[in-house]
Amino acid sequence: MTTSMRIMTDNPLNAETPAARLRSWITPNAVFFDRNQGQIPDAPADLDTWRLTIDGDVNQSLKLDLDRIQSLPKAIVANTLECSGNSRSLLEKRAPGNPWTIGGVGNAVWGGIWLRDLLNKSGLADRAAHVAFEGMDTPLGKSRIKFVRSIPIEKAMSSTLLAYEMNGDPLPLKHGYPLRALALGWTGANCVKWLNRITVLERPFKGFFMDQVYRVFQKGQMPASGEVVTAIRLNSIITRPLAGERLKKGDVVVLGAAYAGEGRVAQVDVSTDHGASWQPAEFIGPDEPYAWRQWQYVWRPDRGGDHTLWSRAVDDQGGQQPMSATWNFLGYGNNGVDEHAVRVVVT
Amino acid sequence: MTTSMRIMTDNPLNAETPAARLRSWITPNAVFFDRNQGQIPDAPADLDTWRLTIDGDVNQSLKLDLDRIQSLPKAIVANTLECSGNSRSLLEKRAPGNPWTIGGVGNAVWGGIWLRDLLNKSGLADRAAHVAFEGMDTPLGKSRIKFVRSIPIEKAMSSTLLAYEMNGDPLPLKHGYPLRALALGWTGANCVKWLNRITVLERPFKGFFMDQVYRVFQKGQMPASGEVVTAIRLNSIITRPLAGERLKKGDVVVLGAAYAGEGRVAQVDVSTDHGASWQPAEFIGPDEPYAWRQWQYVWRPDRGGDHTLWSRAVDDQGGQQPMSATWNFLGYGNNGVDEHAVRVVVT
Repeated sequence: MTTSMRIMTDNPLNAETPAARLRSWITPNAVFFDRNQGQIPDAPADLDTWRLTIDGDVNQSLKLDLDRIQSLPKAIVANTLECSGNSRSLLEKRAPGNPWTIGGVGNAVWGGIWLRDLLNKSGLADRAAHVAFEGMDTPLGKSRIKFVRSIPIEKAMSSTLLAYEMNGDPLPLKHGYPLRALALGWTGANCVKWLNRITVLERPFKGFFMDQVYRVFQKGQMPASGEVVTAIRLNSIITRPLAGERLKKGDVVVLGAAYAGEGRVAQVDVSTDHGASWQPAEFIGPDEPYAWRQWQYVWRPDRGGDHTLWSRAVDDQGGQQPMSATWNFLGYGNNGVDEHAVRVVVT
Repeated sequence: MTTSMRIMTDNPLNAETPAARLRSWITPNAVFFDRNQGQIPDAPADLDTWRLTIDGDVNQSLKLDLDRIQSLPKAIVANTLECSGNSRSLLEKRAPGNPWTIGGVGNAVWGGIWLRDLLNKSGLADRAAHVAFEGMDTPLGKSRIKFVRSIPIEKAMSSTLLAYEMNGDPLPLKHGYPLRALALGWTGANCVKWLNRITVLERPFKGFFMDQVYRVFQKGQMPASGEVVTAIRLNSIITRPLAGERLKKGDVVVLGAAYAGEGRVAQVDVSTDHGASWQPAEFIGPDEPYAWRQWQYVWRPDRGGDHTLWSRAVDDQGGQQPMSATWNFLGYGNNGVDEHAVRVVVT
């Protein structure tokens, strides 16, 4: 059983959590997935000089140090974060980008302040429509484009955290110390790390990371014509047994997780006969908005040989995880039941 | 602001979490309080030879290795653990034992198996009334008495976990690797670490740690005549500002936690005028059975100088934290509002 991170690229660091470490509700900081566009800062920001700037279409620009931020009303929120491209490598048809299996996801309890409290302090101009986040990481690649992303003002005002704490520890350097944006229930691309500037805009930020990537589009289409990747899609994963595992006859406790972005997971069903029948799984562990549910299902294989395990999540609006993901050119949002199947051998 | 552990004794290790590290819902494993009677094992148990034995008044004794334990249905539970003697040093009248302030408490998300699943597997004899836990730590002190504790069969069958995971990580060595008992909502004394033997008994285990300590009794009374320390009492703590902190005029965000053992915290009120008036605090963070609630209250001091902050928790049965704890000879269960007051200076 592999329990160390699977590194996909070194510079920038992109690494996923092994499935066995996704079996608990809390994903420890040390094994939380790494997704970077730029180079992680070499050293933690110097808090004597670090400031968060709020500017743009506001009545009053602000500059705050970390002490000031931590002196504001605190929010503590469980939130499951997923990379936009998570599970991309499980698609039948190849898509470019990091070859994530299921480990570009994790759940943490974050502490910070509500972005709306800051925006209310600065005062929004009437034309304010989007909020752009900029971080301190150094851009990589030839074009040296900063990773700037913006989210709609409605999301910024309703459910976006500026987090300085992760699972009770100060935000680790590689997860954005001292501060990161967390658009709750949205993919990691919307959650800029090493945040030091928040700019209120009258339209979405224009740039490579808004218009060329993190868009759902088909081959031959203009990327910018595609929908922006925002909320995490309803999905379920099997974390035990592991793919290819050889199992002895007898009861097998199947473990997994299910998540729904801004929604709530209401049910998870398991099929061991390619969908001919589905059995309900049992939820285990905390039940919190924005956070995944862990589940288990006791399976008694009726024969030796190859078996395929499927899990399928249903949300509280009756939405159902699709049997197969809708393919798109960059392979975002793969939440297909079939792509997340686990094949095992009973001996 | 001190953020390192406050070590009270070295051998055995007894150390409390600094108040500033109790501000989040999750208490990280690295700063979770340490309470030991014996010597922490030098090295993790060898899993090739480690076994959990279940014996005594059962139909069938069992010996299980960790793989077998981890192959059983999993439970994931948030549980706030508190030392029986936590806050002892805040009592007005001195009591012997480690001088805990408020840091003998912490909250973790634990993974393991339900003890009832094992006991059902072994089959309980009709006379089964108590369940004793024995660990692998080496006794210290002249008398070399093992730390053995038993709990009633009703608690063992309803809400006792055998935990192998703490905040998503394998149980750390100093917190009982590979396995510890967790009588949910009960004090640490009922949650034996380095567990390797569970013995079902027809009466409570007899011994020093059952009859001489972890009993609520008054001076001159026989310890064994006192009630056994079991469930954690309703309590609230203030984690910010810290005692003695000097605050500037203006809004002060007061942070704290409240917990109720097997109960649920329903409300926390704050008084800054010695109880003449009480204002409701706001809950922040996850709301789970057995786990504490984080709360905050925005306070605007009306004058400079000395101030005393009080917090008072109410449970969902209307039970209220007492203004002052009921003193007992060993200083257990101090949950007094006044003892947990924080005095600060506004400049």
